[in-house]
Amino acid sequence: MKAPKIPEATITRLSVYSRFLERMDRQGVVTISSGEIAEGVGVSPAQVRKDLAYFGEFGTRGVGYNVKDLMRYTLKILGLTRPWTVVVVGAGNLGTALSTYKGFRDRGFYIVGVFDNDLTKIGKRIQDLEVYPLEKLPEIVARHGVKIGILAVPGEAAQEVADLLVQNGVEALLTFGAVVLNVPEHVVVRNVDLSVKLEILTFNLSFRASHGL
Amino acid sequence: MKAPKIPEATITRLSVYSRFLERMDRQGVVTISSGEIAEGVGVSPAQVRKDLAYFGEFGTRGVGYNVKDLMRYTLKILGLTRPWTVVVVGAGNLGTALSTYKGFRDRGFYIVGVFDNDLTKIGKRIQDLEVYPLEKLPEIVARHGVKIGILAVPGEAAQEVADLLVQNGVEALLTFGAVVLNVPEHVVVRNVDLSVKLEILTFNLSFRASHGL
Repeated sequence: MKAPKIPEATITRLSVYSRFLERMDRQGVVTISSGEIAEGVGVSPAQVRKDLAYFGEFGTRGVGYNVKDLMRYTLKILGLTRPWTVVVVGAGNLGTALSTYKGFRDRGFYIVGVFDNDLTKIGKRIQDLEVYPLEKLPEIVARHGVKIGILAVPGEAAQEVADLLVQNGVEALLTFGAVVLNVPEHVVVRNVDLSVKLEILTFNLSFRASHGL
Repeated sequence: MKAPKIPEATITRLSVYSRFLERMDRQGVVTISSGEIAEGVGVSPAQVRKDLAYFGEFGTRGVGYNVKDLMRYTLKILGLTRPWTVVVVGAGNLGTALSTYKGFRDRGFYIVGVFDNDLTKIGKRIQDLEVYPLEKLPEIVARHGVKIGILAVPGEAAQEVADLLVQNGVEALLTFGAVVLNVPEHVVVRNVDLSVKLEILTFNLSFRASHGL
């Protein structure tokens, strides 16, 4: 079967829908309309319907969606019906913040190792984790079947760390800042550039000012 | 003039295009096609043309875009032809990581204050910044004309901090994690949820597996 081409923005919204549906489910809501989902997450109802349509037929006209079913389905699409183990490389401020980020565990992401090559950081405790030397990475990745690595290292170290992760079977990498990695085709890489988010703010501030709003 | 409705995904890509154009400009590239931009940033040429079309006519058929002009124009749209001062509230690991994030300064964002109400953090130095008590926030925001605030505080403190920032004239807030804020209509809020990015990775890993890829 040929994989349909699904826009990344749709996946991002599915992730947001699934959180909203979890919240509704916890509140005991049984059925929900695309309009209610749309309002809950701040997009148009047409967008919600279009996003869900990529994955098949949902909902009953005039009745809406069953919250539990749709929630489970979005989680399934996102690959979240199983837990994922994750390693973080870099135990500086960013790596430490990521290692203790509550949002990960809520979604089934378990950090099983934090690594650094800085002797002043190795052995340091980050909540229930201990910072390990990079040499220990192959063992931890193998033991926990880790497929996801987060790179919280300076840009100049990123490629070397990515190579190490990939050699040990990690297939998905999350990087921060202006980092471009060369990786084999089977490896998925996504980058978080925090200035992009700030630029959405400045676009709004400037655009509004220039239109006298 | 009525402001056209521009999709947020377009703004995000403009931010990415402008970085790519800066790099090309530094390398001495004078003209560039939508296909080359597309390849450079990993989207389709049609997407590049569609995104730029929101902002008027660009480029010459068969010749392409002038790199310097298009770069300047994207920066102008994003509000980046002027510097922006920013405050960070919260001097934990995340706040510290953000306060020293190199990518901000490269794009003209200057952190002029880091604040916390934790006595063990106040007075601590983060590179050339000193952690100030929250009481000092009004003075710093006024002195530097700060319009942008980054909230790196626990979820339960976020609303109170947002109120303080907004009362002092801040009009754009960046938050982390699962935080929902009530703010006046003129305030722009964007949220960085790092698990969303991980879920794009797991979507790709799972989808590929389930399609035998």
